[in-house]
Amino acid sequence: MPQTTHPLDASLELAAGDDGTFTGATSAAYANMVGPFGGNTAAVLLRAAQEHPERLGEPVALTVNFAGPVADGAFTVTARPTRTNRSTQHWFIELSQDGVVATTATAVFAVRRNTWAADEAVMPQVPRPDEVPAQPMPPFIKWADNYEFRWIVGGIPQPSADGAAPVESDDSTTTMWVRDVPPRPLDFAALTGICDSFYPRAFLRRGTALPAGTVTFTVYFHADSEVLARQGDEPVLGTARAKTFGKGYFDQVAEIWGAGGTLLATSHQLVYFKA
Amino acid sequence: MPQTTHPLDASLELAAGDDGTFTGATSAAYANMVGPFGGNTAAVLLRAAQEHPERLGEPVALTVNFAGPVADGAFTVTARPTRTNRSTQHWFIELSQDGVVATTATAVFAVRRNTWAADEAVMPQVPRPDEVPAQPMPPFIKWADNYEFRWIVGGIPQPSADGAAPVESDDSTTTMWVRDVPPRPLDFAALTGICDSFYPRAFLRRGTALPAGTVTFTVYFHADSEVLARQGDEPVLGTARAKTFGKGYFDQVAEIWGAGGTLLATSHQLVYFKA
Repeated sequence: MPQTTHPLDASLELAAGDDGTFTGATSAAYANMVGPFGGNTAAVLLRAAQEHPERLGEPVALTVNFAGPVADGAFTVTARPTRTNRSTQHWFIELSQDGVVATTATAVFAVRRNTWAADEAVMPQVPRPDEVPAQPMPPFIKWADNYEFRWIVGGIPQPSADGAAPVESDDSTTTMWVRDVPPRPLDFAALTGICDSFYPRAFLRRGTALPAGTVTFTVYFHADSEVLARQGDEPVLGTARAKTFGKGYFDQVAEIWGAGGTLLATSHQLVYFKA
Repeated sequence: MPQTTHPLDASLELAAGDDGTFTGATSAAYANMVGPFGGNTAAVLLRAAQEHPERLGEPVALTVNFAGPVADGAFTVTARPTRTNRSTQHWFIELSQDGVVATTATAVFAVRRNTWAADEAVMPQVPRPDEVPAQPMPPFIKWADNYEFRWIVGGIPQPSADGAAPVESDDSTTTMWVRDVPPRPLDFAALTGICDSFYPRAFLRRGTALPAGTVTFTVYFHADSEVLARQGDEPVLGTARAKTFGKGYFDQVAEIWGAGGTLLATSHQLVYFKA
């Protein structure tokens, strides 16, 4: 049987040029309503640093700023190590199209060493993945076809019957089992996408879809590549909620847990919305 | 009586050069064990964008990366708008000394408008500021003299008696009333510093000071300048905890509440530590 490239790996293919510049293209498989899924763009920017010849260690933190729309088609990513220390390295990364900046990012890489360790957050108590039905996002959200979502609480609001008011909620929490489709071993790129795979918290509070877009998105990678490799392609548990909504923005705080109860990543974002 | 410049305002004085370049100098009042207090450096970087002639709107998000040590003395800050949209603007900001990058940042500014609003997080129930004694940090933490800390839970661990083991804790939460000293009306710069004014969470868990330094720090400003102005110079309530510690890093998640129960800012950081 011929080996097929996973859609995530295909979306991350970058051709290296000079001076930390890479060229790539948006992937139809990760299309969002307008332009690509932000979690995929974030993974592309991280990948440029990962493939840079001067790269030291592994990602520990990534902040991506969605400065403007990314058009379908080719893009250029420039990754620049702003400072390299003995065991840490800082990056500035920029995605542009036709010379116009669409996305910027900073990343921290590090060579990690063993220290005292403790998970203080507690993994939510939830049914096993096989006890929760997989449910699709609405069909026009193309990128969501690359994920299997098993919502435990806070599934995507359903359209109201004609004339009925949307069912609002006073809790923006979504907790779900999630994995890539087709199943694919977890790595930093996949984990980055999963951190951004929660639909916008304002939909849940307001009971309906509304205009919303992430402006800045941060991932802290608590797992290193060894821990990620041990996750294999099993679902991970994600939980996300907002702390506040107002004056055009809301936040999202998320945790991604390995099936065995390891906190793999925490993530934060600030989202523009209209309501 | 002659008007005295507040130490915070003095620390933020930047001389504008060409092309978004500013010069300034570290402030002895905000000295840390090595170099300046990171919360003050963060406020300096934000200030450069605020004073840039092309600045649009107000800060909504700031991420600062502490790439290397800042030496006492002069520095250069370069602020560049990476993209300006109709109501949002993205920034890349870099602090360097003798041509070597020490700190980088990205920021999102926006013109905010009224929308549906809700605080979903709940302010901790705490005694009033005048019911909680102000307590100092250890005297060698110079920058802490610019803050009045009233710890409600999770005060700074006290040194153990000779030979006694440190008192460990299984909860990294600190909740405190905090304000600038001398009292100063709250603004984005002051709020940025306050978000970083919690001592390292690992000290609380391990019961003792240990080597630790923030590598990346994010603030989401939920309050606009009008809401900040209404806070005046009264103490604000800060609460912070870590979710996980391991392999040389821990995280910190913080909320800053106005006395009236408004969530002014949320903040996240990833901290390097040895233990």
